[in-house]
Amino acid sequence: MTGGNKARKTVGILGGMGPEATADLFMKIIKATPATKDQEHLRIVVDNNPRIPDRTAYILGKGEDPTPLLLETAKNVESMGAGLIAMPCNTAHYFHGAIQAAVNVPVLHMMREVARVLKGRVERVGLLATSGTLKTELYHKSLAEAGISVIVPSHDDQIEVMDAIYSVKGGNLEKGREIALRQGAKLVGAGAQAVIAGCTELPLVLRDGDLEAPVIDPTKVLAEACVRLALGE
Amino acid sequence: MTGGNKARKTVGILGGMGPEATADLFMKIIKATPATKDQEHLRIVVDNNPRIPDRTAYILGKGEDPTPLLLETAKNVESMGAGLIAMPCNTAHYFHGAIQAAVNVPVLHMMREVARVLKGRVERVGLLATSGTLKTELYHKSLAEAGISVIVPSHDDQIEVMDAIYSVKGGNLEKGREIALRQGAKLVGAGAQAVIAGCTELPLVLRDGDLEAPVIDPTKVLAEACVRLALGE
Repeated sequence: MTGGNKARKTVGILGGMGPEATADLFMKIIKATPATKDQEHLRIVVDNNPRIPDRTAYILGKGEDPTPLLLETAKNVESMGAGLIAMPCNTAHYFHGAIQAAVNVPVLHMMREVARVLKGRVERVGLLATSGTLKTELYHKSLAEAGISVIVPSHDDQIEVMDAIYSVKGGNLEKGREIALRQGAKLVGAGAQAVIAGCTELPLVLRDGDLEAPVIDPTKVLAEACVRLALGE
Repeated sequence: MTGGNKARKTVGILGGMGPEATADLFMKIIKATPATKDQEHLRIVVDNNPRIPDRTAYILGKGEDPTPLLLETAKNVESMGAGLIAMPCNTAHYFHGAIQAAVNVPVLHMMREVARVLKGRVERVGLLATSGTLKTELYHKSLAEAGISVIVPSHDDQIEVMDAIYSVKGGNLEKGREIALRQGAKLVGAGAQAVIAGCTELPLVLRDGDLEAPVIDPTKVLAEACVRLALGE
């Protein structure tokens, strides 16, 4: 790999899930990097591989196993020179253990990073995420370790949340935003002290300031963790 | 490389010049792709290598030769599985011949793509670009072949344009936009029938509709060429 500042790690992005969320993480890493000219920025390698099968479909027992392509893409990112790997897909963290076992560099864990940020600041958070992420209880587990309980939408509301997420993936951001605003407000009404936009499509349409409680963007939290680790802080 | 639709090529981005322009091209390729779900999107591999030395500084005789790192990064992108390569840096096209000779896949040429889009539509275009790009006459040559003449800022105005570009690279988008709007309007006043935002930082602050003549975004033109070539059209 190219030389340069040896203390710095190249950031690897295991992407494509979805592509817009991948570009969003890329841009958020750039914005989180202290730099005033090109040469001070981090090296970032990306494999945006949208052919990775739908994670939620598989977890709900209705689709192809994404594990082989996730591992192949992670190895490609590592071979591209990555010194750490980030995945801009919440649901894909269900496979985090398998991915971490397949490569020799650290794979960041989005939910643990979010729990680290929220620890001591809130007791109850609302969670907007895919049904796959909810079923895996990825956020529930990481947040429970930080002493935080999770409020999720009702069954019918969750169907709407999934509609919002697939609308964003399909390019209909207006519809996605309208649903995310409504469902986020419901969680705040139910006592959430913050709302996690817990699918990487959601921060594209739901931002901090949109609700009466803070909106947590796990993509931004992940970007900040990438920069911290890459700079060796 | 991962299989899938064999007719499709993986898009490679030789990036980092600058990082924001790289993320911008990435997002514009996604938006230019006809897709309604993740799996219909293109595979895109990126090496965002901001340590590539400043292209303009070298061309003006004041900096390190970026060629070795450009070639190394291009080869890395090819080894990541790219079936074509795009460079979101206008000035770097001065090295296009050397890069194309170093890899076995087509390297798109931004100026030729812009000339293809403008051919037959205008006779005189204004050009906002780095002093490096102006000195190389990259746009002048490609546009002359399409029968189009080029209007550039005066010497003093060009110093301001460079200030705008480095302001954007440094994160001061407001200042960059203010200068780009003023200098773009001057070119229109001098007879430009369209203005090329001919440095990848400029479309981040100057958009079509901002001036009394159309603003051409070479990053968008390049993105559309990537999609066309990747889909085999």
